[in-house]
Amino acid sequence: MLFTLHPKLEADCIYLGKLALCRVLLMNDQQYPWLILVPERHNITEIYQLDIKAQQQLIHESSYIAEQLNTHYNADKINIAALGNQVPQLHIHHVVRYKTDKAWPAPIWGAFDAKPYSEQQLSKKVTELEQILTLTKTAVII
Amino acid sequence: MLFTLHPKLEADCIYLGKLALCRVLLMNDQQYPWLILVPERHNITEIYQLDIKAQQQLIHESSYIAEQLNTHYNADKINIAALGNQVPQLHIHHVVRYKTDKAWPAPIWGAFDAKPYSEQQLSKKVTELEQILTLTKTAVII
Repeated sequence: MLFTLHPKLEADCIYLGKLALCRVLLMNDQQYPWLILVPERHNITEIYQLDIKAQQQLIHESSYIAEQLNTHYNADKINIAALGNQVPQLHIHHVVRYKTDKAWPAPIWGAFDAKPYSEQQLSKKVTELEQILTLTKTAVII
Repeated sequence: MLFTLHPKLEADCIYLGKLALCRVLLMNDQQYPWLILVPERHNITEIYQLDIKAQQQLIHESSYIAEQLNTHYNADKINIAALGNQVPQLHIHHVVRYKTDKAWPAPIWGAFDAKPYSEQQLSKKVTELEQILTLTKTAVII
C-alpha cells in the first residue's frame, strides 16, 4: 500500500525532507523547535509494529535528529515521544526544551495552542534546519 | 562508574526486574498501567548518548514492553516518551492509554497527581506484570 501522510500532520507541519525510513516534518509552532519523524510505512500506529530492522533504523534516525537539534539549539533537554492519541499514524515528536520555555518543566502537548510561524520566520527556520540536517528532498514512497 | 537509580525514580516506582539493558519499573500510580525503562548506564540523559548497540537494544526492549502491555491490557494506545525535564537520568515511559481514562486524549504527565496503589492492589499488579513479562530479578550492574 502507498504511504500517505495523515491529514492532520499535513495541515500542522511543513515538509523538510527525508531520511532513509522517515519523513521529517517541522511542526508549525514558533514556541519550540519541534520536528516530527514519520516512518513511511502504511498502517502503523505503534513502534513495535515495525519490523526489527525498521525499528533500528528509526532509533538511528531519531538519535541523529535529537543530537543535531541539541547541538544546534543548545537545548536543556530533548523531549522525544510517540503518543498518537489524536493522530493514530505513527509519528515521533522531537522537541527542543529550555528551562526558560513557557511550558517548562511540563510536556508541551496540550500546554498551549500552537503559534504558527510568520512567512518570514518560517522561511528562515526552514533554511536553518536544511543547513543542520542532511536530508534528501524527495519523499521515497515505499 | 556504578549505575545508581535517580532518587525520584526510586521513590515513585516499584522495581519489577531486569532486561538485558534496562531496569523495569512500575510507576506507583493506579490511574494507568505505566512502566518505566531505565538503561543501566551511568550519566546518560539522552538516547543518542547510548552507543548504537545499546540504542538498538533499547528499542528492542521498549517494543517488547509496549507489545506485552498492549496485548495484556488491550490498550487503545501506548504512549512512549523520553522526557526528563524533571528527572534528568534517561528513562522511557510506557503508558497504557484508554479512550476512557481521565486524561485522554491529553498526555498524562502533569495532568493529575499520581494516585498510589494500596498495598493489596500493588501486590496484585506486580504479580500480574510478572506473569506477562519475562524479567530477571537481579539487577545486573554494568
